[in-house]
Amino acid sequence: MLNAAGTLVLEKGLRRVTGGVTAAEGFRASGVSAGIKRSRKPDLSLVVADAPCASAAVFTRNQVKAAPLLISRDRLAKGRAQAVLLNSGCANCMTGKPGLADAKRLAREASRLLGVSESMVLVASTGIIGRRLPVGRMLRAMPKLAKLAKRANHTAAAQAILTTDLLPKEAAVEARVNGLRCRLGGMAKGSGMIAPSMATMLCVITSDVDIEPAFLRELLQGASERTFNRISVDGDMSTNDTVYALASGASGIKVRRGTRAAKIFAKMLEAVCEQLAYLIVKDGEGAARLMRVDVVGARNDQEALACARQVAYSPLVKTMLAGGDPNVGRIAGAVGASPAMVDPDRMEIFLGSHCAVRNGEATRLNKSLMRQLLSHSFVSVRVDLHQGRGSGWMTTCDLTEKYVRINAGYAT
Amino acid sequence: MLNAAGTLVLEKGLRRVTGGVTAAEGFRASGVSAGIKRSRKPDLSLVVADAPCASAAVFTRNQVKAAPLLISRDRLAKGRAQAVLLNSGCANCMTGKPGLADAKRLAREASRLLGVSESMVLVASTGIIGRRLPVGRMLRAMPKLAKLAKRANHTAAAQAILTTDLLPKEAAVEARVNGLRCRLGGMAKGSGMIAPSMATMLCVITSDVDIEPAFLRELLQGASERTFNRISVDGDMSTNDTVYALASGASGIKVRRGTRAAKIFAKMLEAVCEQLAYLIVKDGEGAARLMRVDVVGARNDQEALACARQVAYSPLVKTMLAGGDPNVGRIAGAVGASPAMVDPDRMEIFLGSHCAVRNGEATRLNKSLMRQLLSHSFVSVRVDLHQGRGSGWMTTCDLTEKYVRINAGYAT
Repeated sequence: MLNAAGTLVLEKGLRRVTGGVTAAEGFRASGVSAGIKRSRKPDLSLVVADAPCASAAVFTRNQVKAAPLLISRDRLAKGRAQAVLLNSGCANCMTGKPGLADAKRLAREASRLLGVSESMVLVASTGIIGRRLPVGRMLRAMPKLAKLAKRANHTAAAQAILTTDLLPKEAAVEARVNGLRCRLGGMAKGSGMIAPSMATMLCVITSDVDIEPAFLRELLQGASERTFNRISVDGDMSTNDTVYALASGASGIKVRRGTRAAKIFAKMLEAVCEQLAYLIVKDGEGAARLMRVDVVGARNDQEALACARQVAYSPLVKTMLAGGDPNVGRIAGAVGASPAMVDPDRMEIFLGSHCAVRNGEATRLNKSLMRQLLSHSFVSVRVDLHQGRGSGWMTTCDLTEKYVRINAGYAT
Repeated sequence: MLNAAGTLVLEKGLRRVTGGVTAAEGFRASGVSAGIKRSRKPDLSLVVADAPCASAAVFTRNQVKAAPLLISRDRLAKGRAQAVLLNSGCANCMTGKPGLADAKRLAREASRLLGVSESMVLVASTGIIGRRLPVGRMLRAMPKLAKLAKRANHTAAAQAILTTDLLPKEAAVEARVNGLRCRLGGMAKGSGMIAPSMATMLCVITSDVDIEPAFLRELLQGASERTFNRISVDGDMSTNDTVYALASGASGIKVRRGTRAAKIFAKMLEAVCEQLAYLIVKDGEGAARLMRVDVVGARNDQEALACARQVAYSPLVKTMLAGGDPNVGRIAGAVGASPAMVDPDRMEIFLGSHCAVRNGEATRLNKSLMRQLLSHSFVSVRVDLHQGRGSGWMTTCDLTEKYVRINAGYAT
């Protein structure tokens, strides 16, 4: 949970560990530069398990889906996978049948080099849409990628999936179940995007528990909904958004519905997703400041979330946050424009613990105090609609000139 | 109609004239500085008719509505008005009962000075939300405002409603009906906003035809839907958006349902709304480039419009436009994220007359040609979904660093 100061707090019984996507037993990873990016920065990444794993995925809800998603969705039908091959620099989207063939060709090579069944190799891509992958160059880099796959190389793997992100994003936690140690970790790349819904996020999560694929998928969907879908990276929008989860079973811990192990595992999964989501929004393109928007008192949770989204997505609210210039009317305007039922005469808006709008009227909040509240790197906004008991939240970052600069020239 | 080159073309039988909001017979206007804005730029504006007029309005659909809207909505219940008092620099929104009293006090003074019944005075405000109007200063400026109300002062009136707009926005057309001349003109202030839905647009339209209020309202709603709601100023979003229309009857032309006069009047109304809408989007905050998005082949018109909106609102598309950097995948991503039914394998996207995506695949369009297409001040994008016969369009502007700069400091 993100507390009032903007710090992530772990649930009891969990402990943060290092190791990212290879923190759990049974996984190795690597990352190399294959020359997909002109910058020659790392752009080819691999996560491989010692044996086939129970696996699940959450994909974008965008109707335009990139080639790697279509392939991996099919391969995941049986709920098992052993390796994930990822690249940055090219999304392999809108590339038609040749794009599908490219991705399959690369997966086949990974299968051969790793000694893994071809149907057990998942793929993921991020970068420019509408361009073919440089397959030749990628094939030439793959022996090195396979050879480097080690438990120690998790950060190299996390680095090779970045696009405009500034920092690699890793998280891992540990817990004990019936005296046994289990771990869950992951790596992600951010959207970079602020007005969320259009950029790509990729994420790979690994764990050493023993779990059924269907149960893993169910838990992954829930955790994604409450973490990745609550930051300004809306899972339903990019053509390439993908979250993969693989569970090796190496810890010997069985996660079955209704057990204490399942409860602990769900907490671990949500903690890692939450931390990765937080790292993504914090590293948003050009972002300098985070804002958590809590909506309470809505008629139901759905309306509360829709209202929080409208505030978190508003360019006027985001630019206000960038400027650190209090203009609470912009928040109220976004609230009123949301699909949630709003009674303008009853709504309240708080900045931190200070009430800026009461009964629909702006309070005489001291302007320099408001400015100070908005000057922190984490700003908390709470909206009380006084319509019912529904609540929801979103975390977002500011919209800066730097964001525009980055995105005006991205394809170049 | 906006033609392929981005030029507004008038329907046959109409002729552009000067005169803006006083081009029609029976109207006077004025604008002064009342000191609402610290800059001392003009901020108080008046349009007054020689006699009570048939009147109608279109208001924001935002659930949070500013005081002047609540008052004017009540006064328009009978469909008649004679004067509109407008101000910039303060939205008089979220100001509670005191805000309602402020607006009524100002309207009463206008009524007294102009010799117009109090219930015939409409009000409109734009500017910062959550602040009270400086009523004393405004009252002191009103005798001058009333005295300056002349046919010649239409541009002064148009100037006094601006906020971050760079230029005043006026339009007027003339036509002949049964040998008589009739005119329709108006003034507007822009949103400035790019990601449309949150800033304020105000517009006053006047005409000298004789028309029933209910019919006027119906035509005004239709014209607004096809013009102001098709640019990046979404009528349903700001707390203050208002379009007023007043018809004096001075031309002697009767506009009745089903007549040729009604047909001509509807064309005039749409032409003026379209031109004002065009001026608004062109003068969008920081905007350097316009884009018209046409969606055809949707299952129905509603889906086509939703799809055009998704493209026109996408920050990634807008920043691409700012950079003049072709990245057609961003357009495809927005199309796929829209609520319209999309078959990724059949969709086509055209930049100008060049096909950039065919059957869902990016074509090998020459990059320097694409860059050239995006370098014009007007860019035309056409999306063909091949799902049916529905069509829709939106006009938008680019998202620039200047936009962020303007909005990061607006309240200061």
